[in-house]
Amino acid sequence: MAKSLKTNVQTTVKKETEVVKTSQEPLAIGIDIGGTGTKFGIVDRVGNVLFSGSMSTKKHAQIDSFIEELYKKVSELIEKAGGTGRVKGIGVGAPNGNYYTGTVEYAPNLPWRGIIPLAKLVQDKFQLPVVLTNDANAAAEGEMIYGAAKGMKDFIMITLGTGVGSGIVANGKLIYGHDGFAGELGHTIVIPGGRLHPGTGKKGSLESYASATGVRSTTLEMLNDTDTPSSLRKVPVDELDSKKVYEAAIAGDELAKKVYEFTGKILGISLANAVMFSSPEAIILFGGLTKAGELILKPTRESMEANLIKVFQNKVKILVSHLKESDAAILGASALAWETH
Amino acid sequence: MAKSLKTNVQTTVKKETEVVKTSQEPLAIGIDIGGTGTKFGIVDRVGNVLFSGSMSTKKHAQIDSFIEELYKKVSELIEKAGGTGRVKGIGVGAPNGNYYTGTVEYAPNLPWRGIIPLAKLVQDKFQLPVVLTNDANAAAEGEMIYGAAKGMKDFIMITLGTGVGSGIVANGKLIYGHDGFAGELGHTIVIPGGRLHPGTGKKGSLESYASATGVRSTTLEMLNDTDTPSSLRKVPVDELDSKKVYEAAIAGDELAKKVYEFTGKILGISLANAVMFSSPEAIILFGGLTKAGELILKPTRESMEANLIKVFQNKVKILVSHLKESDAAILGASALAWETH
Repeated sequence: MAKSLKTNVQTTVKKETEVVKTSQEPLAIGIDIGGTGTKFGIVDRVGNVLFSGSMSTKKHAQIDSFIEELYKKVSELIEKAGGTGRVKGIGVGAPNGNYYTGTVEYAPNLPWRGIIPLAKLVQDKFQLPVVLTNDANAAAEGEMIYGAAKGMKDFIMITLGTGVGSGIVANGKLIYGHDGFAGELGHTIVIPGGRLHPGTGKKGSLESYASATGVRSTTLEMLNDTDTPSSLRKVPVDELDSKKVYEAAIAGDELAKKVYEFTGKILGISLANAVMFSSPEAIILFGGLTKAGELILKPTRESMEANLIKVFQNKVKILVSHLKESDAAILGASALAWETH
Repeated sequence: MAKSLKTNVQTTVKKETEVVKTSQEPLAIGIDIGGTGTKFGIVDRVGNVLFSGSMSTKKHAQIDSFIEELYKKVSELIEKAGGTGRVKGIGVGAPNGNYYTGTVEYAPNLPWRGIIPLAKLVQDKFQLPVVLTNDANAAAEGEMIYGAAKGMKDFIMITLGTGVGSGIVANGKLIYGHDGFAGELGHTIVIPGGRLHPGTGKKGSLESYASATGVRSTTLEMLNDTDTPSSLRKVPVDELDSKKVYEAAIAGDELAKKVYEFTGKILGISLANAVMFSSPEAIILFGGLTKAGELILKPTRESMEANLIKVFQNKVKILVSHLKESDAAILGASALAWETH
């Protein structure tokens, strides 16, 4: 954390000259609230993160003290950027965030219980317009405004991290659905009666397989069910995670490679179903699992194509987000701010 | 067919007085092209089918002779309705119809091969604006303009007939996707590795289970795999169809009822996945399978709710279309015409 803050400071210095040159251009604030930490930054129209910072989420048991610290820290950045006059608005990405109501509802990974009127709290404090949505939808907005989906009217963003999130864009607009909760591709059932998801109690959802947690489960199953030799057999169960599986796979471990093949096969079925639903131009993947590159992309692509009917085959691009991982959450949230009035 | 034409003539006589009264109101023409027959009609803004007729599709091996007969027959109706001056446009629903290009592409059930520029052919002949889409999307437009989805911005229409079609509306607009082919829910995979779909070569798609053909297959499987007594065991295999299964089920046949339970269970998984994707206010079902009423709706609803994560539970209405089956195809197609400029 200290290291990344230092980098931010350097960036700040480097960019300050540019800010002076372009002082009339509008800026957006992006705030990404995660279970552990919150990141925030000030972003220009083309996606340069001019100033950024971070703080702890989880040490704030009360939402009010969270808002206080957030206001203090972000205000410092606003000052550096030339004051609130240039800031068009604030975009907030948060788990279980609802675009329509501006509330965060029963987020299991955040310290605050029940329904939190987060957009209103931020708006009242900063006296700036605020748009809020969940983190995956924010990521999709980020790709559409600054990233791989620039100019696309129909695409699907999928974040493959600890969980699986998604944001679906059709006719040039995010699909929020009637209640603001659309885009939960991670919870769709891909193997009826399959692996139990301890968080939801449902069996066979995509998230049970195509997440960091899913990769760990698949590895443990394969270690248990087969005799395939693997360097992973020496790793203590508690320490086995998707990073170790990835390292084993690139070192050539057969079992680890099979884990990725299996994961890609299941992810590919879900992608095929998503394609037949909304026929996107591209599917953009983001997050930890994509680091495995072709190890995961090849089986995913093959499985997707194999499950598509002819009219959809060889048309849909599977792209990996090219936004810098350290900036992506801030960029995604800030993209929402351009919508504010 | 003769009987339904007679009914149309009676309707015509009855409605002619109304037409005189409201002669300044715009009208739309709806044309629904099916593999066997084509239906057409003239519809007012609130969904009254003022005049209608039908003709054979399959006897026209050439598209030109089809267009000739269509023009002749529809022109007679236009005359009765007071001439082309009142007609805003023509909507055409056809299998494999592409909204963007106005073409019908490789439709296996139509007599014409390859890519047919149907919208252009109709437009050139009638000298009226034409919008074309596939039959399920047209049905969704019909529900949105005249039917159960009036006023809804987010809903999914599913047609359960010989096949399974769907039209998805989000943010108040049909989702056509980047290529015009979105909404193929019937081809999404619900049971990976499951029943083979002879038409697509894919395994475990929704259409293999939740269609008239799927109900027949499930029945044959259950008759073969179990000893459950059933009146259907006496039906010659060639004559066994979903209608016979329905009749047996309402007469209390245990096996026939199990067929509907199984069908509903699978349909419910797909509906849950669709809900978690686009979070619609309602799912509107239409077509032969819905005639079974609660026999199919109850297990479908239960399975959908069981597969939804909490945030979506007990929110989404499953409705059965209340458009008259004889009018629905014409209404759906005509709904497109209101979009024309």
